[in-house]
Order: sequence, then C-alpha cells, then structure tokens
Amino acid sequence: MDLVRELRGILSEEQVTNNPTVLEQHGKDESYHTPSLPDVVVFPKDRYDVINILKFANNYKIPVTPFGLGSSLEGHVIPYQGGISIDFQLMNKILEVRPNDLLVRVQPGVTRSQLNKELKKYGLFFSVDPGADATLGGMAATNASGTTAVRYGVMRDQVRDLEVVLADGRIIHTGGLAAKSSSGYHLTGLFVGSEGTLGVFTELTLRVYGIPEAIMAARANFPSVKNAVDAAVAIISVGIPVARIELVDARSIRQVNLHSKTDFPETPTLFLEFHGNEDGLKKDMESARELAMENGCRGFEFETDSKRRAQLWEARHHLAYAFLHGYPGKKMMTTDICVPLTELSGAVERARETIDQSGIHGGVLGHIGDGNFHTLLMIDPNDPEEMQIAEQINASLVEYALSRGGTCSGEHGVGVGKAKYQRKEHGEALDVMLSLKQTLDPNGILNPGKIFR
Amino acid sequence: MDLVRELRGILSEEQVTNNPTVLEQHGKDESYHTPSLPDVVVFPKDRYDVINILKFANNYKIPVTPFGLGSSLEGHVIPYQGGISIDFQLMNKILEVRPNDLLVRVQPGVTRSQLNKELKKYGLFFSVDPGADATLGGMAATNASGTTAVRYGVMRDQVRDLEVVLADGRIIHTGGLAAKSSSGYHLTGLFVGSEGTLGVFTELTLRVYGIPEAIMAARANFPSVKNAVDAAVAIISVGIPVARIELVDARSIRQVNLHSKTDFPETPTLFLEFHGNEDGLKKDMESARELAMENGCRGFEFETDSKRRAQLWEARHHLAYAFLHGYPGKKMMTTDICVPLTELSGAVERARETIDQSGIHGGVLGHIGDGNFHTLLMIDPNDPEEMQIAEQINASLVEYALSRGGTCSGEHGVGVGKAKYQRKEHGEALDVMLSLKQTLDPNGILNPGKIFR
Ligand SMILES: Cc1cc2nc3c(=O)[nH]c(=O)nc-3n(C[C@H](O)[C@H](O)[C@H](O)COP(=O)(O)OP(=O)(O)OC[C@H]3O[C@@H](n4cnc5c(N)ncnc54)[C@H](O)[C@@H]3O)c2cc1C
Ligand SMILES: Cc1cc2nc3c(=O)[nH]c(=O)nc-3n(C[C@H](O)[C@H](O)[C@H](O)COP(=O)(O)OP(=O)(O)OC[C@H]3O[C@@H](n4cnc5c(N)ncnc54)[C@H](O)[C@@H]3O)c2cc1C
Repeated sequence: MDLVRELRGILSEEQVTNNPTVLEQHGKDESYHTPSLPDVVVFPKDRYDVINILKFANNYKIPVTPFGLGSSLEGHVIPYQGGISIDFQLMNKILEVRPNDLLVRVQPGVTRSQLNKELKKYGLFFSVDPGADATLGGMAATNASGTTAVRYGVMRDQVRDLEVVLADGRIIHTGGLAAKSSSGYHLTGLFVGSEGTLGVFTELTLRVYGIPEAIMAARANFPSVKNAVDAAVAIISVGIPVARIELVDARSIRQVNLHSKTDFPETPTLFLEFHGNEDGLKKDMESARELAMENGCRGFEFETDSKRRAQLWEARHHLAYAFLHGYPGKKMMTTDICVPLTELSGAVERARETIDQSGIHGGVLGHIGDGNFHTLLMIDPNDPEEMQIAEQINASLVEYALSRGGTCSGEHGVGVGKAKYQRKEHGEALDVMLSLKQTLDPNGILNPGKIFR
Repeated sequence: MDLVRELRGILSEEQVTNNPTVLEQHGKDESYHTPSLPDVVVFPKDRYDVINILKFANNYKIPVTPFGLGSSLEGHVIPYQGGISIDFQLMNKILEVRPNDLLVRVQPGVTRSQLNKELKKYGLFFSVDPGADATLGGMAATNASGTTAVRYGVMRDQVRDLEVVLADGRIIHTGGLAAKSSSGYHLTGLFVGSEGTLGVFTELTLRVYGIPEAIMAARANFPSVKNAVDAAVAIISVGIPVARIELVDARSIRQVNLHSKTDFPETPTLFLEFHGNEDGLKKDMESARELAMENGCRGFEFETDSKRRAQLWEARHHLAYAFLHGYPGKKMMTTDICVPLTELSGAVERARETIDQSGIHGGVLGHIGDGNFHTLLMIDPNDPEEMQIAEQINASLVEYALSRGGTCSGEHGVGVGKAKYQRKEHGEALDVMLSLKQTLDPNGILNPGKIFR
C-alpha cells in the first residue's frame, strides 16, 4: 500500500510526508536507543484528523506512534515496527485559561515553557518541569515529573481531563473540571503514563497554581553524598514543605560549572526552594538549615536575588545537556530508580561507587525529596563493552530498587529501555496491564513494542 | 446448592453464617436505599481465605459483595442479587508502620480512627476523614475524602499499593513503596474507587503525614451562603494553603447546636483550619480573615485552644448524625456534586433555594475548598411523594453540575444511587469502563449492579 498517498486522501497534502530528513527526526529520541524509521509522518490539525488517522490505521493494522518533542529517554517514540508517526506540532494552541478555577485547557503539542509564558500573565504557573522543554501530551503520556513534584505532585496529579482518541477512532473524555470525583473508574489515571499504548490525547485539562507570594532558594554543600541525602530525608520526614530539593553530586557540579560558567563549590550539593508567605518561609528555611547542619552541611547559602535563583535552576535543568556537550559523540543512558526514603542513602552511595569503579563517566543527581534520582552515563552505543558495563550498572540499580519496594522508573517511563524489568517489578499485575491493553487496542496498533516486550 | 455448607468446607465453621440478624446487618447501608439480604456472610482471616472464596464464587458464578462497615451512602454494599457478603472485620491488623518513609501497611478492615490512634504514637496522622468511622478498605473502594482533601488530597492520593484478589482468585500488587512511578499502567488509581466491582483488597499501603508543628482553627460567620462560598473561593484562588475549609449553612448549624449542645451562631459559617509553622500560619490566617471580611464576614473567631478545636471538628463530623437523630424514623438522602470553583456559589445557592421550596427538611454543607458539597435530605423511603421530591432535587443538582463540567459524586461514589447518571456524565467513556469491568470480571460476580445499570 502507498501509505503516503492513502493518508493524503484523508489529510491534506502538506500534513503527510516521507521526506527522509523528517523520517529521521521521528526515528530517534534523546537517548542511546537505536534509531528506526517510521514509514510516514503525519501532522494532524485537530481531533478529527486524529480520528481519521486511527480509523485508517486500525483498519489496515498499521502501527501508530504519537510524537511530542521526542525528548523521552527510553526509546518511547522510536517506531521499531515502522508505520505512522503522529507529530502534534500543529496542535499547539492554549484553548482556555480559567484563572479562578486554577485550570487550563490545551492541545497536546503545547510545550511547558509556552504554557508558563501564557500563565504568567495571570499570575499563575504550571508546576511540572522536566529538564527538557517537552510537550504536555508527551508529559502526560510518560507521567513526567521534575524538581517540584515533591510539593505539587507529578503529571498525573495535574491532569483533570483528557480527550482521548481510542485505537478504533472512538473519542472519549476521561474526567471533568471538578477537583475530585468518585464517579466511575479513574480513566484519567490509567491513560496518564500509558506512553501512547492505550490511546492518543487530543486535548488536556490541567491544574495550575498561583505564583507563590514569596519564593526563596538555597544551596547546601556537604562533604559526601550520604550526608546530603541524609539531610534531605530528614527535611522531608519532619514535614517541612519544600517546593524543591535536588541532589547534584560533585561530578555533576563540575560539569555544570564547565557548561554554564558558574562557580558553584564542587562538592555534593542540595539545591532547595521554598514557596509560601515570607514569615512562614523564613522559619521553614531556618528549620531546613538546622537539619542540614546536623547532617554535616559545610555551607548553607541563601539565594534571595531572583536572578541568581533563576540561574541556579537553569544550571540544574541544563545538567543533562552539560554532560552531552562535554562528551561530543557520546550518548546518554539514564537510570531512574525511585525508592522509599529510608533506602535512598544506600541507593545513592551504591550508584556513585558503582560508576566510579566502572570507568564510565557520569553524574548522580535527582529529585531526592521523592526518593528518585538518576545516574547519567555517557556512553558510545557502538562500543559493545561500554554498553554492557552501562547496562549492568542500570540493571544492578533497578535490582536494588525492586528488592526494597521501589520502582525501575520514577519519571522517565518504560519505553523499550525498561520493558525487561516489568515482569520483575509487577509480577502478575503485568498480565492485568496486558489484558487492559488488549481490550483497548485489540489489533495492537498503538505504539507496539513499548512497555510490554 | 447449600452455600453455607460449601463455604464451611473452605473456611472454618465460625467464619460462615446465615444467621438472620447478621444477614440483615449486611443487607443495608446508612442511607435510604432499599435493603436486600445476602445469602451468606463470610469473615475471611487472611488473603488465602479471600482467594478461596473468590475461586469458589467465580466457579459457580455466585455474586460477591465486599463489606467494610456499611457506612457508604449509595447502596454500595447491598447485595441486590444475593450471594456472598465478605465482611473484613477479622482482617483488622495494622501490619507495619514505617515512620521515616511516612508509610503504613494495613489490612482492609482497619478503621481510620484505629489507624490514627496507632499513628499518634509516632507523631503521625492519616489525613482522610469521612464523617463516619469507615474502614480503609471501604474508603479506598469509594475513593473517599473529607474535610482535609483540600490540602492532603483524596483517598486515591494516599494509596501507594493495594494487594488485590481478582475475580478468578489471582492476587496482584498494584503499586509499591516509591513516592512516584512511571513504570507500567497506574492500576492503583484504577482499583481505588472501583467499589468492589474489579477486585477485593486484602492489604493497603498508605501515605501518612507528620502531625504539623502548629494547628489553628477559626469560624467565620456570614449573612448568606453566597457570601460564605465567595469568601472560600477567594481564599482558595489566591492559594492560601488551608488544611480545611468547610461550609455549614444556618439550618445545619441549628441542628449541630441541638445535637451537640454547642452554641455556634446560627448563620452560614465557614469552619477553617491551618497547618504549618506558627509564623506562617498567623500570616495565612490573617490573609484568610481579610478575604472573608471583603466578602461580608460578620465575625471571624479564632479557636486556638486545642479542646475547642476538637469540639468544632467533632460537631462538623457529627452533622449527618445530628440530622438523623433529629428526625427519628426518617432516612437520609445525600447529594454529592462537585463543580469547578467559579460555579460553586451558583450551585450552593440553587441547592438551598430548591430545598426551601420543596418542603423537605435538610441542610447544605460541604468541603467547598474542593467545590464539593452535600445536601442532607431527611426523607421517609415509604412515602412515595417525599421520595419523588427528594429524587428531583438530587437530579436537578446533578444536572446543574454536569452542565458545568462537574461530577455527580465528589466523594460518596456511585453504588446504585448514582448509576443512572453515569451515561450522562461519562458518555462513551462509560463503555470503556464497562469493557475494563468485563475484562477483569468476565462472569460479573463482583458487586453486580453497582456503578453500571
Ligand atoms: C535533558 C533532559 C532532561 C529530562 N528531564 C526530565 C525530568 O526531569 N523529568 C521527567 O519526567 N522527564 C525528563 N526527561 C524526559 C522527557 O522530557 C519526558 O519523558 C517528557 O515527558 C517527554 O515529552 P515529549 O513531548 O518530548 O514526548 P515524546 O518524547 O515525543 O513522547 C513521549 C511518549 O509520549 C507519547 N505521546 C506523545 N504525545 C502524545 C499524545 N498526544 N497522545 C498520546 N501519547 C503521546 C509518545 O508516543 C511517547 O510514548 C528529560 C529529557 C531530557 C532530554
Ligand atoms: C454520617 C456519614 C458521614 C459521611 N461522610 C463522608 C465524607 O465526609 N466523605 C466521604 O467520602 N464519605 C462519607 N461518608 C460515606 C462513607 O463513610 C464512605 O463511603 C466510606 O468510604 C465507606 O467505608 P466503609 O468501610 O463503611 O465501606 P462500606 O460501606 O462497607 O463499603 C463501601 C464500598 O467499598 C467496597 N469495599 C469494602 N471493603 C472492600 C475491600 N476490602 N475490597 C474491595 N472493596 C471493598 C464495598 O463493596 C462497597 O462498594 C459518610 C457516611 C456517613 C454515614
């Protein structure tokens, strides 16, 4: 079948392409996973386009892979079975801001920075902030989170409603505008994090927040990652409502300084932020400082200036790019385990030691208020030995997390990279997931090969 | 088949009964819904008992209805198709408290007050507080919430992991101990709120919180419900992190005063509570007071004394019982809509007026920080005219909510009472829910007749 011709019968000419450069852009993500091309890329303009694409694909059993910005890290968007890549860049409108309801309705191709720019006009912000400027459709599909999840929750906590086109072209809404509901099954929660394998999102209603009255940030330096983690766990355990609490190890700080021309002391560091009213914040920061000091902190610097604060978080957000630019030609493998707080210190120490012994270059950093951290491993996918070492580090950290009640992925998702750990993590629950997949996508056209092996 | 004999072959003698009094206790809930008896009541002691009961029931296609305390309000536990009622009162152990992980593992028959009594020893508390002392299994199955959801979230936000026995006797874990995860489909969210129709919970891992450093409460009196609601919406919209913000209308305050021998001024009132550090709270309360005053508040009283504060919340929690005791012989119908904040004031006003015009006795009250409120309608289920009027009030409020993006149930759930609104609320998404139900319970043995008509 001539896919391009058939699809041009459904969409308009310029919405369908098999231009090699475009295919190549949709055959990879930002990670080490092996690229593989789609047969065709389509650019829907609205929900009706998406319905028509899916009806066609389902009819002819053609694989379909939704594509946001391709910033995901586990091969999520790579169409290993070819077929149609659906790119949402033309569906990028902010449809409605409801400031007093603290809600916003967007198309899936809107990016988080685009949304925050618009929300600022209303004194509002959207909380979830992955290190890449991702689309909200992609972020919902991976249940993304970031530095603020410790206070505001993950993507799933922000989504009130999804408009979803199912494999057979039916279209549903999974939720509504109410802040809570006990009416019917929680489809929103099921579709968030489904990585394009259960349906395609054509609209999202999201929770937003008022920009806090006061914001203060701090940097705390420690002699060891263990000290830094112990301090963070103490701060969370006593219930200080930090808005952000990030671990950046010495190796990563060095990379940041090189890349962002900053001069942060090159020791294990916590980056912290506090949101609230000024009086409350001062007390919270003081309590946090005391707990840091009790855990060996060697310097606790406040960043009251809003420019300096922005610089701090920009440096943090650019950390992965700092490594990528520092190792031209190398690709990045990222581990993403999340463990209960009491297991965090052991997990982080083990990660740092394992990397040091392996000879691979990489940093340890993460959203440790949630028990989630990454190792960024710089590797050459064409070097089988290096790949094997990195895979072993990844596997041993996952093993460690699972044996302690944790998960193989705190936020990046499964894609193809974490598929091999699903049985171990979920046991018979994986069969339940698979039966839901088969019920909603009987022909297996939606992002095949992801999550399930 | 002699169900009692067969089940006694599986469980021990005293775990199986068809004693008429026990059957009667398991044939009703705390609402107006018509009772209907199970054929037998069983009392499992552990997960293996539950597995055996379900294997047997599935084999012979016998309906099974899980039973916590029967405090639900929409006929959830009434076995209209007979069969087996599973009562969890023997599975009431707190299995593990992990204070530094802010987690607890419990059996489903543990009640929220039992849990809080234990947690207090560790300086912790469990946040969800429905007005009845419900079981955690029942609360998870209805996605219950209460006065603190505005700050800490609903039941679904607290559940990290469920051990679930499926219709065919398979047993799975839906989650883990990690604070967040992007690994696999979110089964926890799907099973929470499934009202015993998808599986039976045999263990729950729940998130708990440190008792805040400082707690302060307040009462604010208003000339009208509209003023009270507008004040509440203003407080939420600017992002003051209230821990509780409850509307109690004048009629309800009168009933409280009668029942609890309190002397609260009989005007529309907001009950508020703030959690945090003392400096921050003072500022939050002052900001809240100012917004209340701008919206017509006639008196803003602080309740700093912890005894008085406890009395305030006890009075609020006993409100439904205050009405029930005030109208001996009558039963309670409760509406439970939840709407976006900007629609709240209109909805509450309409509710109060509709009740006043109907001649039915009842109060308006609720968790208005979430946009959720109830009318408690005192009715005689044997009086067809009164029943019809109450049904009309219920239907017209649901209609109002749905037309504004809200839900028919903010927290009580569907059961049989709200089943008739499911198609209207969910549209084609209801077919998706039904297909999930059929996938997980092909013989339709799990709490049949609930959620779906
Ligand atoms: C430098 C860097 C830092 C990062 N930091 C973080 C971080 O802190 N936290 C975090 O969570 N992630 C992080 N990520 C990973 C990535 O940003 C997230 O996974 C993000 O959610 C992907 O969004 P995207 O728009 O790029 O989606 P894509 O990568 O294009 O797609 C992701 C998945 O979503 C599906 N999808 C996309 N659009 C739709 C739709 N409309 N309907 C249905 N399915 C759809 C795709 O099929 C795919 O399975 C980082 C990545 C990089 C490169
Ligand atoms: C005075 C009063 C005030 C109330 N206030 C509130 C309130 O503020 N907020 C609120 O949300 N609700 C409130 N309710 C409703 C009620 O308390 C909740 O619905 C509660 O969650 C029910 O818990 P239960 O243990 O009584 O469960 P039950 O009523 O016994 O069962 C409820 C549902 O859960 C299922 N179930 C029970 N145990 C299990 C299990 N182990 N596995 C699977 N399914 C199971 C049952 O089959 C049923 O469908 C109130 C009720 C009363 C009477």
